[in-house]
Amino acid sequence: MSERYVYDFDEDVPGGRELLGGKGVGLAEMTALGIPVPGGFTVTTDACRAYMRAGKQVPAGLDAEVQRHVEALEQRSGKRFGDPHDPLLVSVRSGAAVSMPGMMDTILNLGLNDTAVEGVAESTGNPRFAYDSYRRLIQMYGEVVEGIDAARFENALTDLKRARGVDQDVDLTADDLRELVATFKEIYEQGTGRGFPQDPGEQLARAFRAVFDSWDTPRALVYRRANGIPDDIGTAVNVVEMVFGNKGESSATGVCFSRNPSTGEARLFGEYLRNAQGEDVVAGIRTPEPIERMADVLPDAFRELQDTVRRLEEHYRDVQDIEFTVEEGRLYLLQTRTGKRTAAAALKAAVDMVDEGLISREEAVARIDPGQLDQLLHPMIDPKAEVEVAAHGLNASPGAACGAIVLDADTAAERGKGGESVILVRWETTPDDIHGLIEAAGVLTAHGGMTSHAAVVARGMGKPCVAGCDALSIDVEAKTVDIAGHALREGDTITIDGGTGTVIIGAVDLVPPQLNEDFEIVLGWADDIRRLQVWANADTPEDAARAREFGAQGIGLCRTEHMFMAEERLPVVREMILADDENGRLRALERLLPMQQSDFEGIFEAMAGYPVTIRLLDPPLHEFLPPVEQATNEHMAARIRSLHESNPMLGTRGCRLGLQWPEVYEMQVRAIVRAAVAVRERTGKTPLVEIMHPLVGFAEELKRLRAMTLAAAADEAEIDFSVGTMIELPRACVRADEIAEFADFFSFGTNDLTQTTLGFSSDDAEGKFLTYYLQDGILKRNPFETLDQSGVGDLMRIAVERAKAVKDIKMGICGEHGGEPASVAFCHRLGLDYVSCSPYRVPVARLAAAQAALAESGVTAAVAGG
Amino acid sequence: MSERYVYDFDEDVPGGRELLGGKGVGLAEMTALGIPVPGGFTVTTDACRAYMRAGKQVPAGLDAEVQRHVEALEQRSGKRFGDPHDPLLVSVRSGAAVSMPGMMDTILNLGLNDTAVEGVAESTGNPRFAYDSYRRLIQMYGEVVEGIDAARFENALTDLKRARGVDQDVDLTADDLRELVATFKEIYEQGTGRGFPQDPGEQLARAFRAVFDSWDTPRALVYRRANGIPDDIGTAVNVVEMVFGNKGESSATGVCFSRNPSTGEARLFGEYLRNAQGEDVVAGIRTPEPIERMADVLPDAFRELQDTVRRLEEHYRDVQDIEFTVEEGRLYLLQTRTGKRTAAAALKAAVDMVDEGLISREEAVARIDPGQLDQLLHPMIDPKAEVEVAAHGLNASPGAACGAIVLDADTAAERGKGGESVILVRWETTPDDIHGLIEAAGVLTAHGGMTSHAAVVARGMGKPCVAGCDALSIDVEAKTVDIAGHALREGDTITIDGGTGTVIIGAVDLVPPQLNEDFEIVLGWADDIRRLQVWANADTPEDAARAREFGAQGIGLCRTEHMFMAEERLPVVREMILADDENGRLRALERLLPMQQSDFEGIFEAMAGYPVTIRLLDPPLHEFLPPVEQATNEHMAARIRSLHESNPMLGTRGCRLGLQWPEVYEMQVRAIVRAAVAVRERTGKTPLVEIMHPLVGFAEELKRLRAMTLAAAADEAEIDFSVGTMIELPRACVRADEIAEFADFFSFGTNDLTQTTLGFSSDDAEGKFLTYYLQDGILKRNPFETLDQSGVGDLMRIAVERAKAVKDIKMGICGEHGGEPASVAFCHRLGLDYVSCSPYRVPVARLAAAQAALAESGVTAAVAGG
Repeated sequence: MSERYVYDFDEDVPGGRELLGGKGVGLAEMTALGIPVPGGFTVTTDACRAYMRAGKQVPAGLDAEVQRHVEALEQRSGKRFGDPHDPLLVSVRSGAAVSMPGMMDTILNLGLNDTAVEGVAESTGNPRFAYDSYRRLIQMYGEVVEGIDAARFENALTDLKRARGVDQDVDLTADDLRELVATFKEIYEQGTGRGFPQDPGEQLARAFRAVFDSWDTPRALVYRRANGIPDDIGTAVNVVEMVFGNKGESSATGVCFSRNPSTGEARLFGEYLRNAQGEDVVAGIRTPEPIERMADVLPDAFRELQDTVRRLEEHYRDVQDIEFTVEEGRLYLLQTRTGKRTAAAALKAAVDMVDEGLISREEAVARIDPGQLDQLLHPMIDPKAEVEVAAHGLNASPGAACGAIVLDADTAAERGKGGESVILVRWETTPDDIHGLIEAAGVLTAHGGMTSHAAVVARGMGKPCVAGCDALSIDVEAKTVDIAGHALREGDTITIDGGTGTVIIGAVDLVPPQLNEDFEIVLGWADDIRRLQVWANADTPEDAARAREFGAQGIGLCRTEHMFMAEERLPVVREMILADDENGRLRALERLLPMQQSDFEGIFEAMAGYPVTIRLLDPPLHEFLPPVEQATNEHMAARIRSLHESNPMLGTRGCRLGLQWPEVYEMQVRAIVRAAVAVRERTGKTPLVEIMHPLVGFAEELKRLRAMTLAAAADEAEIDFSVGTMIELPRACVRADEIAEFADFFSFGTNDLTQTTLGFSSDDAEGKFLTYYLQDGILKRNPFETLDQSGVGDLMRIAVERAKAVKDIKMGICGEHGGEPASVAFCHRLGLDYVSCSPYRVPVARLAAAQAALAESGVTAAVAGG
Repeated sequence: MSERYVYDFDEDVPGGRELLGGKGVGLAEMTALGIPVPGGFTVTTDACRAYMRAGKQVPAGLDAEVQRHVEALEQRSGKRFGDPHDPLLVSVRSGAAVSMPGMMDTILNLGLNDTAVEGVAESTGNPRFAYDSYRRLIQMYGEVVEGIDAARFENALTDLKRARGVDQDVDLTADDLRELVATFKEIYEQGTGRGFPQDPGEQLARAFRAVFDSWDTPRALVYRRANGIPDDIGTAVNVVEMVFGNKGESSATGVCFSRNPSTGEARLFGEYLRNAQGEDVVAGIRTPEPIERMADVLPDAFRELQDTVRRLEEHYRDVQDIEFTVEEGRLYLLQTRTGKRTAAAALKAAVDMVDEGLISREEAVARIDPGQLDQLLHPMIDPKAEVEVAAHGLNASPGAACGAIVLDADTAAERGKGGESVILVRWETTPDDIHGLIEAAGVLTAHGGMTSHAAVVARGMGKPCVAGCDALSIDVEAKTVDIAGHALREGDTITIDGGTGTVIIGAVDLVPPQLNEDFEIVLGWADDIRRLQVWANADTPEDAARAREFGAQGIGLCRTEHMFMAEERLPVVREMILADDENGRLRALERLLPMQQSDFEGIFEAMAGYPVTIRLLDPPLHEFLPPVEQATNEHMAARIRSLHESNPMLGTRGCRLGLQWPEVYEMQVRAIVRAAVAVRERTGKTPLVEIMHPLVGFAEELKRLRAMTLAAAADEAEIDFSVGTMIELPRACVRADEIAEFADFFSFGTNDLTQTTLGFSSDDAEGKFLTYYLQDGILKRNPFETLDQSGVGDLMRIAVERAKAVKDIKMGICGEHGGEPASVAFCHRLGLDYVSCSPYRVPVARLAAAQAALAESGVTAAVAGG
């Protein structure tokens, strides 16, 4: 077999990450840069795949090849395996092409045996450390290579501590640990029928087999399935010379970031410990020092560290997170990888790096995780707070809130208006609760999914919401709730984090949104780059103003039904629905008209110069009525029963309402036109009005609605506006050509389009079969969060193609997906004109749109190093 | 202006139906055949269009052109307009290219004036007839041309009868009518300020303008909109010489069919009246004689009639329905058109005409209306019975039934088993009613649409059903019902006709299905012609046997949930659903297995040699549970509540169940395999089994289900079968390529596909917005009855193209559309392999499939003449 399976870190290798794994390629790259790393070599993923294919047989010649590289390593390091004075010790670490943290096995201190342990004791002057290292090797090797139960070693350690009358491992002496080594060797022999192998070569040969085997453990399989990693790529194995930071006062160990990962400040951030090993930090014996103090005690090593970190940043062009050891004054980098950071730090680092000339504006924009921006746009739980999470629900609307539990909307409205911070806690919310939602600081529900009433309304308001919290139960009569066994009463304080879906008993410190200059700078660059416009979904003047603040270039969806649901209007709306004839309806509508008009006026003024897309009434009428048990008379009860539908999602709603009871849409059109005229007169600027008809499936529907809209408007005043439709039914997608004839614009309603295309009711899918599908990996992503590009997206593509074939028509998206980065990128590729999302997601969408444009021209975020 | 607008009936004309209208082309065609028709001419649709375009201005030269044709007509007839002895009288009749019966105006007896009326009195020897004709002209002309209110003429007639003390028009004398003429002329003068025009030329010129104008009346507009007739084609006007059957004993008038329209028997069928005009028949003065008696009294005219009818049949190659007049021994045909006939007559005539060499087998097959075949396959209300319809509902399942009202399923089952004919009358039915449905003769519900539980189950059983009967209300406690004001009690008799949706109080005579030899012959020809296979939807051995009788070539859909709903099984099914864990479910499933197995065995035996497609459990589990109020304990109530869904159509059903609780599908697969083995052992023939997974939207679903199915089957026995899926979600259509990888066959479930593509819940659409859409013409056809070809059909086309691009895969349709002729034709054009429909629709589908094949090769039903 002439194939090569093993490469030293300093060799030229005919392959990268796929062949050497992420860790291996990082060590090789640092070696090539001349950055000091310990010596060592990598057994390639090819070897692992050959081992698997052969039914877990080591390929011919591999053991010999490894042996040759060990010998070369001995020569370079001047140390030898098993040496009684200063033995060569190595770590054996897995490292696949894709990071799978903690999923596979690692063995440290390999090379120790009964002789070598004395050599370590001698060279470190620390026999306690030597025996502790040896007993750890026996334990790790026993577990990983031989499959001995970890509890047997742990029990022996506990027995010894009890016998010595000590609590902590660190209180054991070198002699105690020597005795423990003997005990561990007995356990090993009992478990395997053989003594612990004294030959380091044998240790190594069996260790890398064990790492290969760990590729196929159930937990690794599950992890790969959950993360979409192929099963057949295998792992590489890195054999790295161990270096010691505990060889006296000129030795040290530490971790640091090239820039502050919380703030982004451009100076080394981290900590170190002199004359110590990483173990010491973990065991809590000593407190590490801030990294800058190293300048005083180890000035040469510190300068070299600063220099090395700078070179790594220049090479990887990104913030680095490194581990290092100083062994007798000599610096070794053990690992470098892209540093995880907060959104604020990411923005600052990006802006600074552009200033420093390290990266271009495009790279800076490409590199920010749009999803992370959310952190900056809502209050958060103080990252420094220690919290105990009592229960989890769905992360339905981001942000954190802390307040008193209230169990009904009236109380929430009353106490909220009084200035108290309250959390509305309900089985689920209904339109009847809207006045309570408006005044609450946050919402927690036991039922409902990501698109439940509570979730949608809360997102629209930018208010935290945790929905579908199974562990919550409520006794409204007794005014008590139970959260995962915590018995609470109305008025007790809880904290919810709608960004993570967590519920915490009691109050927690919150930190405010961290909008800053860096944020504006990066989004300004993004605006220069993107082609896709970003609009917002906003139902009130306040929402519209916020949308403008966040940079929205229009309102893509103004839902008029939310106006119908306001506390003082609902009775009038109900009167309209309960009317026996058109006259009765008209009387009620006449009273609703000025209310809608004033809402529209406020929105038009807030959006001066930008388009406002108003969707006419969409939900089924029964959503405005109470449950039948709460009907106040038999007439109302009968009407509620007659409006009942088996599948309201597919029933009398949207334009089906508007066609059957045209007086409702006519009133809305008249209110829109009157508002536009009033604003034109007041401000001298004509609002850019777009009237949108929901749920159109047939061209004939829109033909009639368009005629009705134009006629009702012409009755009122001369004013320019456009008429368009939601595209939210599969039929509308395939017949987009016919529908386009009567539309000035299309807006894809991807929430309903997902429901109909997939046959998934969003109310019934989450917490039920969809949750099962996601858990079991039948679906990789929740299609209500991330657009199902190959299904729903394909219908959108068909719609775009067919509509464009007959007409150059403006198209956008106003579903929940309009603020989700991958979906925004899809909309860019589809050639849409805009995405519209909740005001709080506008910055996310601006960034995502720019990244989509960059991706098209080949600029993507740099691949993380290390 | 050199354009010609007027053609005599005997001229060669450069245009057909589009130019001359249907009536004009028939008269011209008969003239060309040498068949005696009255003289006359046609003013073309071109003239009408020019008139419209010019804003209701008669094109230059048209009046003169008409005048020339009048003169030619006078010359040919030897009569003259206004002649005091034997004047020329004409009728002026509209006639568009497309028949619009009763929508536009006609004026008879034009040419009468104060002089000519005396001429008619003289030539007919019947002054009463002459004055009656004249007063009718004044009335008709006054209404049509001048827009005088019809009531004014009617009131004058009533006043005269009151003054004379008579009840009937016919009791008025010639003198009375002469006086009435004078009165009518006064009314005319009061209404117009002018005297009734005495110049026949002026009468004619203003009459054809009035006919042109009648094209634009609101009722004509509405009719065209409802029937999809373009507004701009206009109508032609026919000016036809009046002939009189009341000129003595050698004159007569009559109507007849070339063959018996009820039985198809090949002899003249009709009636005549000697010395009479059509008016006399209408006025009921005399009773007409059977046509064959004419042979004795007017032998020459009768022979000529027979000869003429034979020539018309030879020319039009179809049964003719004619009107004729014999004027002084001379026969005139006034109209010929294709004769409407019963299904039985259509079949017999077709078979006879093929025997006679008149038409080919292909023409015979092309000509039968497939929808009409339904008449032959169910009991019908005796066409001779006089019935009074009390109420209408949806024609949910064809056939008629007569029986005692019962208001609950238990009573229906008990009394039905006892041999009584009962009609189950319910607000709506549920799976709990299944035992009652089985024993009832028919079902009547107040709620629910064409795909409500009652409708689907009844169609499956071939049992009459009228659903969604708004006029029905039920008081179950009092055991009374109210049908459109008729107060009835349980036990009272009603009759329902599920083919027309009518409800009749009391018993009506029914006639049995009329299967006969002609039927078998024509369908045999159809089978030779068609490419598309016809399968049936059948859930029981009895259904399967019936499907085979009707010629089904396989079972395309065997719904296993109906097996779960049988009375003795439902408790076990509920036990399964209510089980707390997998073990509990498995215990219940173990008991269901032999029940399902025995059903499958019966179906396999009935279908020996033909494929049987079994769909695994599809409906949401809550369909098997009672309403929460009827829960027998808190555990059951909690389970019912937890299974509740807002939109069950889009919830946990179909393969979502099978993936989440695989033990259910595994049990079904095992039952199928055991049944196949048992039948193979018993009969020596291996059943052709196809296992079908419902509601697949993602390839991953079918991948897992296929693996599960193969594994469960392999556990049982070695047996060949195929695994496929329903295609009933838009996503499945666009991703048919990926899904095909794991499927041996596709079956389009067009009912659910219609619901999701259009966003129409079939339960909520009918009787609600869909009914409104159909009434208002937004939709032309109910998409649950006739496939929405441009929407749902386009997704099917995409699915077929994408699947065929990766695999040659068998495809069929098993929705409700599989037995609807236009939808069958679409499936043929789409290249599907089969359609599957309820057993009773199989003959319809066989015929429709043949017609689709014929249409492809250019053979269509002959266009009706006249």
